[in-house]
Amino acid sequence: MVTKSRLKLIKSLSRKKNREQHQLFVVEGYKSIQELTQTNLELEQILVKDGNHHLDHLNVELISKKEMDQISMMKTAPGYLAVFKIPEELDLPNDELVVALDDIKDPGNLGTIIRMCDWFNVRHIICSLETVDVYNPKCVQASMASLGRVSIHYIDLKEYLKKQKLPLYATAMNAPSVYKTTLPKNGILLMGNESAGVSPELLQMGNTISIPSYGAFSTTESLNVATATSILLAEWRRSTIEK
Amino acid sequence: MVTKSRLKLIKSLSRKKNREQHQLFVVEGYKSIQELTQTNLELEQILVKDGNHHLDHLNVELISKKEMDQISMMKTAPGYLAVFKIPEELDLPNDELVVALDDIKDPGNLGTIIRMCDWFNVRHIICSLETVDVYNPKCVQASMASLGRVSIHYIDLKEYLKKQKLPLYATAMNAPSVYKTTLPKNGILLMGNESAGVSPELLQMGNTISIPSYGAFSTTESLNVATATSILLAEWRRSTIEK
Repeated sequence: MVTKSRLKLIKSLSRKKNREQHQLFVVEGYKSIQELTQTNLELEQILVKDGNHHLDHLNVELISKKEMDQISMMKTAPGYLAVFKIPEELDLPNDELVVALDDIKDPGNLGTIIRMCDWFNVRHIICSLETVDVYNPKCVQASMASLGRVSIHYIDLKEYLKKQKLPLYATAMNAPSVYKTTLPKNGILLMGNESAGVSPELLQMGNTISIPSYGAFSTTESLNVATATSILLAEWRRSTIEK
Repeated sequence: MVTKSRLKLIKSLSRKKNREQHQLFVVEGYKSIQELTQTNLELEQILVKDGNHHLDHLNVELISKKEMDQISMMKTAPGYLAVFKIPEELDLPNDELVVALDDIKDPGNLGTIIRMCDWFNVRHIICSLETVDVYNPKCVQASMASLGRVSIHYIDLKEYLKKQKLPLYATAMNAPSVYKTTLPKNGILLMGNESAGVSPELLQMGNTISIPSYGAFSTTESLNVATATSILLAEWRRSTIEK
């Protein structure tokens, strides 16, 4: 039996300040929950809508459809909701490829970037303090199980970059083509805010790169930041591992 | 003065069969409309919510907020709605890089793929008959002005591929790495359905390629089809143009 106050607490986790207070976040959906339980994330509780199949080998608690609809953060409640503990931040890496994000605001973009980092074996993402919260439900949804395999650090990005010895590559329009650049094996790929790009004071701190366009693409348009990150991570791994 | 029957017709364009009957589709949003009017697409009408700024150099008709809310296909009506003619299909290309899509179902994915094709100067996309309609409002939204610069063809994909002389490269899990493949300058990049991938009978018709994963990514997971298309188009252009 799940108490009303517990359900209220879970529902309150849709807001960042409550997630921070309780150090908990919510994941919804059968597949995401099952995959996240196979990572290092610490599971607190799984709630399943009465009548749904249980999850194999996992302890679940049943709640009514009405209760599930009340606490779900999705338009249509998938009927599976898990509460995980927010993991402690690991030490910052200093000898691998990392991605740094300067004020990414869209949770779907952050989620996709986490997923792509997982695919390309980037284990740490350094976020500016103004970047959207990674435990935002939309971000959790988009990142799927990759959230359990990639560490996210929130930090004063300028201070971090000042102290870094890893070479920095920030994306900027009209910067040299990534294909004309010899990327090092380890370094920092810095991606910018959806509208403003990387802030000028950070751009000055290292190299800049861009993805060339081959078409009649309007110069006022740019690639979506998650797509650009995907292309650049693929090229980074290709040019330093595959060659 | 915009008549009620005209507003009703515009609203009906949210459905594919009505778009096909009238050979019209709808675009919403100031920026998308302004950019699409600069392409070869033929504009039929622009409606602006009374009180909004007009669009420079374009004839617009004013309607009330209530009327705009009624005909808008978006959650929050941006206040700018244009009706364009569906363009006639151009001849199929036979000596360039083209993208073929086998039953892509998500309009956001198709829109993103159109945008990426525009960026990488792919002028034609060949869609299977079961692929989502390109004039679906969500697809129009995601593709932005690129819709006016990339031609979309709906065709029996198997028949098309049978007759093609261009080399075919279909994506498949566990296929040879794209980085170990020498891609030709011109060819067909075939991407598959979000769940099922490229259908087996089409996979047999040519080469297969994949994007290697470098992490501990679960083998049951795969890249989003729009992201995978972006990475493969970038690599196609890099390896045939940049080298």
